[in-house]
Amino acid sequence: MLSVGIDIGGTKIAGALVDEQGLIHHELKVPSPIDDADQMIETISLLVSELSAGQQVAGVGIAAAGFMSSDREIMYHSPNISAWRNEPLKRRLENKINQPVMLENDANAAGWAEFRFGAGAKSKSMIMITIGTGVGGAIISDGVLLKGGFGVGGELGHVVLVPGGQSCGCGQKGCVEAYCSGTALLKFARELASSSDPKGSRLKELAGLTGELAGEQVYQAVVENDPGANSLVTDLAQKLGIAIGTLYVPVLDPQLVVIGGGVSVLGEKLLAPIRAAFSDSMPAKGYRPELEIVKATFLNQAGLIGAADLARQSVAQL
Amino acid sequence: MLSVGIDIGGTKIAGALVDEQGLIHHELKVPSPIDDADQMIETISLLVSELSAGQQVAGVGIAAAGFMSSDREIMYHSPNISAWRNEPLKRRLENKINQPVMLENDANAAGWAEFRFGAGAKSKSMIMITIGTGVGGAIISDGVLLKGGFGVGGELGHVVLVPGGQSCGCGQKGCVEAYCSGTALLKFARELASSSDPKGSRLKELAGLTGELAGEQVYQAVVENDPGANSLVTDLAQKLGIAIGTLYVPVLDPQLVVIGGGVSVLGEKLLAPIRAAFSDSMPAKGYRPELEIVKATFLNQAGLIGAADLARQSVAQL
Repeated sequence: MLSVGIDIGGTKIAGALVDEQGLIHHELKVPSPIDDADQMIETISLLVSELSAGQQVAGVGIAAAGFMSSDREIMYHSPNISAWRNEPLKRRLENKINQPVMLENDANAAGWAEFRFGAGAKSKSMIMITIGTGVGGAIISDGVLLKGGFGVGGELGHVVLVPGGQSCGCGQKGCVEAYCSGTALLKFARELASSSDPKGSRLKELAGLTGELAGEQVYQAVVENDPGANSLVTDLAQKLGIAIGTLYVPVLDPQLVVIGGGVSVLGEKLLAPIRAAFSDSMPAKGYRPELEIVKATFLNQAGLIGAADLARQSVAQL
Repeated sequence: MLSVGIDIGGTKIAGALVDEQGLIHHELKVPSPIDDADQMIETISLLVSELSAGQQVAGVGIAAAGFMSSDREIMYHSPNISAWRNEPLKRRLENKINQPVMLENDANAAGWAEFRFGAGAKSKSMIMITIGTGVGGAIISDGVLLKGGFGVGGELGHVVLVPGGQSCGCGQKGCVEAYCSGTALLKFARELASSSDPKGSRLKELAGLTGELAGEQVYQAVVENDPGANSLVTDLAQKLGIAIGTLYVPVLDPQLVVIGGGVSVLGEKLLAPIRAAFSDSMPAKGYRPELEIVKATFLNQAGLIGAADLARQSVAQL
């Protein structure tokens, strides 16, 4: 049976009708009324009725960034949706749309999509690292999504890699996210562009076109094979490879690491140095099977597909 | 029904008959013939027949340190038992004793005992940190023991806390084990005793009695409230509290952390600074429920009790 996946973003809400093989049959996007909780409910419910018109659907899965209760009833705090503070999201939506609703963290939903239908479909234990604005994480252990005792497990971006290092939005210093996110990459690129280091000359040139360097321009410089931009990507990748080897693998021992999110479009330029740094930093090297590190299958649709499948599964368990 | 738990050590093998409430009915200890694989099988099988004489038992659980296959059939490498290299332990024992045998890592078995019958009996998601010769770890996530994709998950002692720091037996530098194990504590105490630091005077005195400082003497100095020994325990505890906050909790989000192993007999002298350092280093402080950090219920018998229970459960699943 089909189910509906909804991915809540800070500017757009995407919705899709997804089948049991993870294929999207119909997708829609609408603006996100982030500062009005009633409008959010209204917008999601219109999206659901439009998508499910004339169809029987198993349920509705919502993927959103934020801290939510461990029973996934309440969104405590969503960074992108200013109206969602202690919002009883599941109950409000279920009352409005008369469908079972399942709420999940966006990084977890994306990891679940890769596990069920994408790069992780042949694994039983995997982790997904989503490199976008932040660094999101999802852990699947022996076929089960690890949610944590209080519902906030799998925050792979907020493990400390560099004690006392760069400040992170979470209040700590030296988190993986402070070095390996798209935001960190852009910050380091701007620093290089405004420095006197000759490696930053192309980035400086690109920044001159618009006044301040943007993410697309960093991407352009990498595509042009600019040594300065390349070295920033390599630095990010090495840090992430070390994090995988020294922080994630000893605890979780996954068979597979899936790298997703916007920055993963850099492909092998990102993945090759991640693998090399991981290989140098893994514990008990030579005494354990080596895991694979691969690129995600889905890009922007992972959250939708994962949320739709989690909704179907949670209804099946009722 | 009763089951048998066996705990394999480098000098002794302990065996016990354990009931469904985790209570030990009968316990035996015999020397460990570590350099002869046939003798190991013989010794374990004699222990099992003596313990189970006249009783019906559900199965036999073996707790041992070492790398084992993910299906728990083969002991690849046991650090303490030199005869166990690629040993097909489960099959050999089952052929010998005609009982279902279940093999598990000793730290995992100990954590399982705490989860089922000890300090973690009211939790669903917990971790156990065993501070002994090394630092062992066990992860229980939503009621399930996390074994990892290749069977070597939960190695909490081999997460890197201090990049480029103290060398660790695993080949890496700066692992939690290199700072927070009993071995590390003794090493730092010996360094302090042989230094000119006046804080080491009592430790130097105790070392003088036997030539080289032993673990019991460090324990004695802590019991005497010696400032030098106390400061070493506080250092260890602070490092572990930081590891819990910055390395384990963001990934696993447990409701409870159980501290066990020989060093845990230091009680609040160890636990209070662990809690304080954890509280200062947790991510998103104030936005998440705070976990509890408590002392283990079982000391030396955790491995036996956990192995016996895991054997009963694995037989029930057949």
